[in-house]
Amino acid sequence: MPDVSRPRAVADDPADAVPPVTLQDERRAQILEAARICFSRSGFHGASMGQICAEARMSPGAVYRYFPSKDAIIEAIAEDQREMAKATMSGFFEGGSLVDRITRVGMAYLRSSKTSHCGALMVEVCSETIRNSSVASRFHQIEEEVRATFIGALKESQAAGEIDPDLDPDYATLALFAIGDGLMLRLELEPGTDIDRLEPYLRRLVEGLLLARPDRSTR
Amino acid sequence: MPDVSRPRAVADDPADAVPPVTLQDERRAQILEAARICFSRSGFHGASMGQICAEARMSPGAVYRYFPSKDAIIEAIAEDQREMAKATMSGFFEGGSLVDRITRVGMAYLRSSKTSHCGALMVEVCSETIRNSSVASRFHQIEEEVRATFIGALKESQAAGEIDPDLDPDYATLALFAIGDGLMLRLELEPGTDIDRLEPYLRRLVEGLLLARPDRSTR
Repeated sequence: MPDVSRPRAVADDPADAVPPVTLQDERRAQILEAARICFSRSGFHGASMGQICAEARMSPGAVYRYFPSKDAIIEAIAEDQREMAKATMSGFFEGGSLVDRITRVGMAYLRSSKTSHCGALMVEVCSETIRNSSVASRFHQIEEEVRATFIGALKESQAAGEIDPDLDPDYATLALFAIGDGLMLRLELEPGTDIDRLEPYLRRLVEGLLLARPDRSTR
Repeated sequence: MPDVSRPRAVADDPADAVPPVTLQDERRAQILEAARICFSRSGFHGASMGQICAEARMSPGAVYRYFPSKDAIIEAIAEDQREMAKATMSGFFEGGSLVDRITRVGMAYLRSSKTSHCGALMVEVCSETIRNSSVASRFHQIEEEVRATFIGALKESQAAGEIDPDLDPDYATLALFAIGDGLMLRLELEPGTDIDRLEPYLRRLVEGLLLARPDRSTR
């Protein structure tokens, strides 16, 4: 009687009962990449496990060994996005002015749009969020962590006299999120855009938003 | 034999064979409002005619008298959006500095998000655009008209020395679209946001993007 507890996960590779972790990782990544393509194309609800299997060129049996449900795939993608967000946000702690740090994180975020259909998935996550779905809740935590970091940094920079003390940190962070989402969306809608050329425009927006100018007030 | 050519459209109202146009308009508006709710909730592909009928509290027969297909409803919504965009853009020609004019149009755009689920529909249209669907093509013209107006105005203002001559009008317009889309998206994602409080933040972004400052360059 075969041991079905662990080797089942690799039973589609009869030549090697306990393959190296790298093969399992590769298969897993292959499924997640296929799922990203399907979710970008048909939405989280519209894409079926059948479509994901076809896109991954794997049998349903093989796919189900890695992920028991579409929901498990969505959770794994959300986990990847959390890791990616952490990597993107690491640039925030590398020094420079607040404008430098936000511009650096913003550019890293925009460049990540070219990885694994992130921009298109962002739109689908927004769509789910507006519909208040359970899919959306899986991605919610990422944003709230970034929000808390931004609001904290804005308050510190206000106290240090680096940025305009009249700004409401909540509304300024909402505006920063709007810039990031909006540019990410535009990169998806206008795929011919050169991301690197956006950097000076992003910097101008962040400067305009955050720096004090004697002739204006937000209150 | 009944005349089926024109009165069919109002045959669900037997008390009045040729009702005033206002009743037809009202029914039509009722269907479109129901469709907007369904499209916001389930996407253009996900929502069915059956759901739209249920949301409008009308029989399929009654709905089909006004719109022969879901596609006809989508086209009618796109037409409404074109009218709304025209009304929004009218503020662009009402005078003031370019920053004033763009801020005015931007605020009108954001306020329109509260009308008939426009913000949520915008996300669905973006989703369709990324998927390069036929639904998206119906909404495409609106954006291209606004883009041409913005690019023309930016060039004129550059020639007049009002804004930074170093800006690339195409990229600056992309950034303006990003601000508009991004803020619209945020209003949907964070429904507690006070639209009016966004005005000074929008103005700061537009100023930062467009106005020349001696210490920076985009090239």
